[in-house]
Amino acid sequence: MPNPTAAMLVIGDEILSGRTRDSNMHYLAGELTRHGIELKEARVVADGQAAIVGAVNALRGAFDHVFTSGGIGPTHDDITADAIAAAFGVPIGIREDARAILAAHYARSGLEFNEARQRMARIPEGAGLIDNPISAAPGFTLGNVHVMAGVPNIFQAMLASVLPTLTGGAPLLSQSLQVNRGEGEIAGPFAALAAEFPDLSLGSYPFIRNGAHGANLVIRGNDRVRIDAAMQRLVALFPGGA
Amino acid sequence: MPNPTAAMLVIGDEILSGRTRDSNMHYLAGELTRHGIELKEARVVADGQAAIVGAVNALRGAFDHVFTSGGIGPTHDDITADAIAAAFGVPIGIREDARAILAAHYARSGLEFNEARQRMARIPEGAGLIDNPISAAPGFTLGNVHVMAGVPNIFQAMLASVLPTLTGGAPLLSQSLQVNRGEGEIAGPFAALAAEFPDLSLGSYPFIRNGAHGANLVIRGNDRVRIDAAMQRLVALFPGGA
Repeated sequence: MPNPTAAMLVIGDEILSGRTRDSNMHYLAGELTRHGIELKEARVVADGQAAIVGAVNALRGAFDHVFTSGGIGPTHDDITADAIAAAFGVPIGIREDARAILAAHYARSGLEFNEARQRMARIPEGAGLIDNPISAAPGFTLGNVHVMAGVPNIFQAMLASVLPTLTGGAPLLSQSLQVNRGEGEIAGPFAALAAEFPDLSLGSYPFIRNGAHGANLVIRGNDRVRIDAAMQRLVALFPGGA
Repeated sequence: MPNPTAAMLVIGDEILSGRTRDSNMHYLAGELTRHGIELKEARVVADGQAAIVGAVNALRGAFDHVFTSGGIGPTHDDITADAIAAAFGVPIGIREDARAILAAHYARSGLEFNEARQRMARIPEGAGLIDNPISAAPGFTLGNVHVMAGVPNIFQAMLASVLPTLTGGAPLLSQSLQVNRGEGEIAGPFAALAAEFPDLSLGSYPFIRNGAHGANLVIRGNDRVRIDAAMQRLVALFPGGA
């Protein structure tokens, strides 16, 4: 059975303006690979309803899971929850259990549970809440879309709440060999090896270090025995990474 | 006149598997902002023809410019040039000027100009070449799509070749204020300020540092005088970042 597939949707003007460098995509990619879910696509869109609705509807139809980050806070530019409701065509309003979680959190911390903070209890109808052990305001899952915060440590904590509930496949395994030659020297024998192992994925990722060209050759698949076999052949082709 | 718009397409399995962290998107975002071109969307897809063709055709229809990174090297998994040709429905083959650039480069460096390296002279019909001062193998521009390498320093050098040829708008200016209060305290007055300055974009980007909540409040626009006016009001609302 093929592994489940996923897409990520990063929501945030600040990523697209270059002000902030996204780190959630890289984190999610690693976690999904370990969990046996294949991340097939990622998108970054601005905090605009049409952009979010369009991307969510395209991705939730094409992949088994969609993970979003960003735009679920209390400020006026946080429009993700409303956009997700619009994408699914369902109503959204303050939900009592989410409101109770937030009320208890602010009572404990002695902060006013004001109107802006109550906005974070707005959850689309039919969604399940995602626990936020860091700052209480929950994420939510609606259909196959998991809506999480953009602040990295809250994103990571929410993902830790969601991932165990999802059925993964066999973890994607990989081995890599660094070869200190230009890809032009590597390409011929590497392509021939890829043809010998059609059940594996062989990729070449070039780099330049101290002015010298090299490449990391990566073998990926679900079967450790096959990966080991391909890696032995690869090392024989490029002994000592030469 | 509104600024020109752009999208980025990052092509690479290694980003989606979590093996490599992309840095070209963040670099491009900053350069475009300085050049007055608005990055509206970014996507990451795997090295697969259908995924690349679908994304390129969606993005080139929706935005003024599309910048791609990755997949133009000599190895079997480098399929970007062929996918771009397929997206535009044009033929692709070895192009004489690209071949000559590469032949001269390998003659100088004493390396064999073998079949794999000649693959890098495959350019879709009708494209213009993008200079690669680092490793010679050119990128190309076809229609409004600028196809560049994935290795960061080559991507950056190619972008430096392309950007001056593009008409930019007024650079997007921004100022930011760090406020050491939770977004829940900030949201009310900040939304009211946003309503007072409908010609500017006001965004709140929360963080947690040493366990304390805060937010960077960012004001963006093309008019420095208006941004300064909004910033003065913002500082008055949150004196000393309090």
